[in-house]
Amino acid sequence: MKKPAITQVSIDPTIAERWSGRAYDASKPITHQQTLALLEAARWAPSCMGDQPWRILVWNKGLDEKAWQQAFNCLVEGNQSWVKDAPFLCLICADTLFTKNSQPNRWAEYDSGAAALNLSLQASSMGLSAHQLGGFSVDKARSTFNIPEQFTLMAMISVGYLKDIGNVTGDLLVRETAPRSRREMGALFFDGAWDKPII
Amino acid sequence: MKKPAITQVSIDPTIAERWSGRAYDASKPITHQQTLALLEAARWAPSCMGDQPWRILVWNKGLDEKAWQQAFNCLVEGNQSWVKDAPFLCLICADTLFTKNSQPNRWAEYDSGAAALNLSLQASSMGLSAHQLGGFSVDKARSTFNIPEQFTLMAMISVGYLKDIGNVTGDLLVRETAPRSRREMGALFFDGAWDKPII
Repeated sequence: MKKPAITQVSIDPTIAERWSGRAYDASKPITHQQTLALLEAARWAPSCMGDQPWRILVWNKGLDEKAWQQAFNCLVEGNQSWVKDAPFLCLICADTLFTKNSQPNRWAEYDSGAAALNLSLQASSMGLSAHQLGGFSVDKARSTFNIPEQFTLMAMISVGYLKDIGNVTGDLLVRETAPRSRREMGALFFDGAWDKPII
Repeated sequence: MKKPAITQVSIDPTIAERWSGRAYDASKPITHQQTLALLEAARWAPSCMGDQPWRILVWNKGLDEKAWQQAFNCLVEGNQSWVKDAPFLCLICADTLFTKNSQPNRWAEYDSGAAALNLSLQASSMGLSAHQLGGFSVDKARSTFNIPEQFTLMAMISVGYLKDIGNVTGDLLVRETAPRSRREMGALFFDGAWDKPII
């Protein structure tokens, strides 16, 4: 199902066509090659001083179901109800310290958000759908996977193929077919002075 | 000048071809239509609970040189030396509170990094080059543009067309032609367990 962004001027299709679907097709796995493409995209995101503060833990259900289940168990129930059909999960972590000098990196989360978006755009570009998830237990994920305190756990991401919309029912159908929306341009973007709408 | 990412598997060209150039062509302005495309791309980034915590202040030198100069004055000297030729500047701010309930939004910076990347990818897609800049005075920018404390100032971004590389000299030529590099995949991405390299 296509849900391109509705824009006043044309934008790049890779950006316009990415959206966060939920109705995964559990029968279609993700290959290791696809995983590498998702991660290469994340790898080439920009970062302050080139530090690349993101670290990404990945779980491919088709290759290691037990590890995938451990990651899945960190999600809140509301997300588990539909993420159960996603063949791929990952966790985005942000290194709070610059590697070169161990000083605090105030762009760690900001840059990690960019890497996560590149991964999501690459998923969309390959016909997959990525959905970022804030609803997970940071404590459980940190203890389950022994993640050092130096790293801030930001988001999990589910990735998979979406089902044909004709096979989706109930609440999930309502959510999948809801129009995408964003704030007005002028509420987000200011022309040279704070709160002066760009249009 | 093209500097595509070197990857083990093919990735989306919009992602692969984005890089952070510096040698702007001061003679080529950015139109208002191009500005709208940059901002539409940012607008359609994903965010936690759909909050869209990013706010972006923009300055187009060709339309308001005085305001552009005020923004330029916030940059550190090292950046000013080459940003001087960029016709467009913007500042990415992150709303620290969720709009719906005024509670702290721990994804404000993370999500703003995604919006900034979409803007940068859209720039690249239009033949422009975007360069994110952490080197600016937060205090000066906040006071000059009356930005409320609720918003964290994350990065400025310069955007413009790059010069033909044959017209670039000195240090700038060295920087523009330096190979792009990233950490090894296995240093950033882990296979189901912390520090277990994906490849």
